[in-house]
Amino acid sequence: MSARATTRPGGRSARVQQSVHQAVRDLEAEVGRGALTVPLIAARAGVTPSTVYRRWGDLRELLSDVAVERLRPDAPPADHGGLRADLEAWTVQFAEEMSSAPGRTYIRDALLGDPGQGSAVRCSDYAAEQLKAIGVRAAGRGEAVPDLETLLDVVVAPLMYRILFRPSELSQAYVGRLVAAALGRAGSPSGT
Amino acid sequence: MSARATTRPGGRSARVQQSVHQAVRDLEAEVGRGALTVPLIAARAGVTPSTVYRRWGDLRELLSDVAVERLRPDAPPADHGGLRADLEAWTVQFAEEMSSAPGRTYIRDALLGDPGQGSAVRCSDYAAEQLKAIGVRAAGRGEAVPDLETLLDVVVAPLMYRILFRPSELSQAYVGRLVAAALGRAGSPSGT
Repeated sequence: MSARATTRPGGRSARVQQSVHQAVRDLEAEVGRGALTVPLIAARAGVTPSTVYRRWGDLRELLSDVAVERLRPDAPPADHGGLRADLEAWTVQFAEEMSSAPGRTYIRDALLGDPGQGSAVRCSDYAAEQLKAIGVRAAGRGEAVPDLETLLDVVVAPLMYRILFRPSELSQAYVGRLVAAALGRAGSPSGT
Repeated sequence: MSARATTRPGGRSARVQQSVHQAVRDLEAEVGRGALTVPLIAARAGVTPSTVYRRWGDLRELLSDVAVERLRPDAPPADHGGLRADLEAWTVQFAEEMSSAPGRTYIRDALLGDPGQGSAVRCSDYAAEQLKAIGVRAAGRGEAVPDLETLLDVVVAPLMYRILFRPSELSQAYVGRLVAAALGRAGSPSGT
């Protein structure tokens, strides 16, 4: 996704985005993904095709934008009273969502229609924001917290790598080992 | 990629694969990726379009297959006399190749033209085979070696995650930290 898709909430731009996204979701359910075209989506959304092309570039970029919206977490991470429990619960849920059939499709769409990698960065930022919230809460309880880049390397990266490159069951024991490895790294240096 | 692309070396199937792959690489350099079509590639390779469709499904699956071939390592990992040195050298080279502009394109092609994930699995297997060779050599010297799944989680996954989702400079210091983390995990349990 490019900067074209930046919106001001409540403005015309936000209304166009909402109706176009809704049209994609509805038509995907009704006619299937293979039958989606920009003119069809524009007609359903009540905008001109050129509005869609101007804003999203092409169908693939539009699908990428819609996919990222679907990957956006709809709530802050649940509070289970401690860092390990919070991290484990979040990681189990993240692994389940991302490795589900719809999750895999959204990740592929996000990566595919996205030559500038903006959609992929937004996906990663969603996970980063959730992990940051867990970390801030834990620090407030006086717990030692691994830094964000370490959590991304040790918890998120292995899950996404296995989902994309080594399809396998992501067992709860495996998730537990990732979290344990991350907790063992509280205070490690990070940065790429 | 599907099982359709399995070849017997030296047979007609292998010759078709070789000439079609060569046609893709040549045409990509001559006319650019956006102008590639199956009929154009087939004509250059001296086969019928239906041969290409039957074997690869569509253009995207063909590009995925070509991309994976380009990601295949052309030599065993260099021997620097010790596990840490071997792992660091391999990881630096892997990070450089995968994060280069052509590397990113091949990874995207491999992932995206590949609904059955066969190409992605082959990419991961190439890295796994190189890491296994490093491990076997180190074990022969009597060194303690982290198991393969741990190396994939701790070294390969963070690099691939950052290349795909968090574009950033992958510094040599960062690579060194990944390797150090992996060496600290020799003998850890693994498996997903």
